[in-house]
Amino acid sequence: MEQITVIKIGGNVIDNEEVLNAFLKRFAAIEGQKILVHGGGKLASRLQKELGQEVQMIDGRRVTDRATLDVVTMVYAGLVNKQIIAKLQAAGCNAIGLSGADGNIVRAHRRAAKPIDYGFVGDIDEVDSTMLRSLLEAGLTPVFSAIMHDGEGTLLNCNADSVTQAVALGASRIAPTDLVFCFEKKGVLRDAEDERSVIERITPASYATLKADGIVSGGMIPKIENALRAVAEGVRTVRIKHADDLLCEAGTTICNE
Amino acid sequence: MEQITVIKIGGNVIDNEEVLNAFLKRFAAIEGQKILVHGGGKLASRLQKELGQEVQMIDGRRVTDRATLDVVTMVYAGLVNKQIIAKLQAAGCNAIGLSGADGNIVRAHRRAAKPIDYGFVGDIDEVDSTMLRSLLEAGLTPVFSAIMHDGEGTLLNCNADSVTQAVALGASRIAPTDLVFCFEKKGVLRDAEDERSVIERITPASYATLKADGIVSGGMIPKIENALRAVAEGVRTVRIKHADDLLCEAGTTICNE
Repeated sequence: MEQITVIKIGGNVIDNEEVLNAFLKRFAAIEGQKILVHGGGKLASRLQKELGQEVQMIDGRRVTDRATLDVVTMVYAGLVNKQIIAKLQAAGCNAIGLSGADGNIVRAHRRAAKPIDYGFVGDIDEVDSTMLRSLLEAGLTPVFSAIMHDGEGTLLNCNADSVTQAVALGASRIAPTDLVFCFEKKGVLRDAEDERSVIERITPASYATLKADGIVSGGMIPKIENALRAVAEGVRTVRIKHADDLLCEAGTTICNE
Repeated sequence: MEQITVIKIGGNVIDNEEVLNAFLKRFAAIEGQKILVHGGGKLASRLQKELGQEVQMIDGRRVTDRATLDVVTMVYAGLVNKQIIAKLQAAGCNAIGLSGADGNIVRAHRRAAKPIDYGFVGDIDEVDSTMLRSLLEAGLTPVFSAIMHDGEGTLLNCNADSVTQAVALGASRIAPTDLVFCFEKKGVLRDAEDERSVIERITPASYATLKADGIVSGGMIPKIENALRAVAEGVRTVRIKHADDLLCEAGTTICNE
């Protein structure tokens, strides 16, 4: 296998059918092996509210009791995943939808109840690269929701960015892997107000300066640090770009040097 | 591949967690290649009611408007399918959950709106035996919900018995295939009131007599006629038995001679 592209889309793409359709056509047009990871949080919150459940988020993560787990399993692994698969099939991309339980491809463990009890929320242990390779070699394009399992019969709600990162690391053991986070902005910006101020390239060395100078801050810090960890661990590049720019050279590339 | 067993479970197994757990342990213990197809109708009706939707059934089939399609996609392809997969993984069976859209493995078409407009309800066109073989050869146990697609981006709600039959026919092009319908009774009964009156074997010839004598009637007629069609088209045997009897010789076997 020459190369694998792993792409993450979040709510800004999923929640608007027109945007999603346009994105999936672009995704289908990417040459070579590819993998998609998707969120679906807003739809889950909407269904929770329709069912009279309270939506409880702590630090951006959903507190997931049994009823919430059912909702996110239905929305992420069912509705959103299967709609994406059907649309990709229509665009000529032979996609297959996966939770971590399918083919035991991603194993997770339930997060400790302290300091915060998130309920059925998991952190990822490992991705089965051999199974991933089998699916890719069968001509399939894996599409992951962020529903994983503990191997003991329990489904777990995981963070889609973490799933993406783990899947990209698993893919990097098969072939050189590029990871793309589709983002609501054009990339990492020098000036948050100016979409033309995209930082083209971030390396461990340049990141230290950017952080010291206060150019990256807030929510971008964990994003970039996770990306730097991914490239340190074997992913070739991580790119942060707007979903519209999927097929062109654009956005911020995070790499080792 | 020596042989494939295709098994269908319906609401009588799925709706009771204890019964489902016991069934899945037995299913995991079946030797050789196997495939599971599941329903989930009662859970879908429950969620429809919770969401204030009207459940509309005609001749046992669910009228499926857009909102209903979302519910059945969530419940069948999401909640029920992924719970089954996680439980099978815990039982040591490397299961993978599939809708027809996944890997484009089952293609369907939307049923004509006349005489009855069922909405997003589909009838099956074909099963991709090559893809099915790839998954089985990768060591996977396919688990199908009855959500299929039309290849043009639209998901379709299909009858789980029809999906089972189509999948079994597809499997029969790979290896000799036995189909098992798990049923709430011990098999086809001579006397509906007596669970000990199971008819062991039905062939096209004996069926003619059973029907003429009025021994099979009502809902059993389409079940047996579909089974006879499956064996005529290449499935080795169709067995109708109680889910509890999965691992033992029991129930009614429908075969060519």
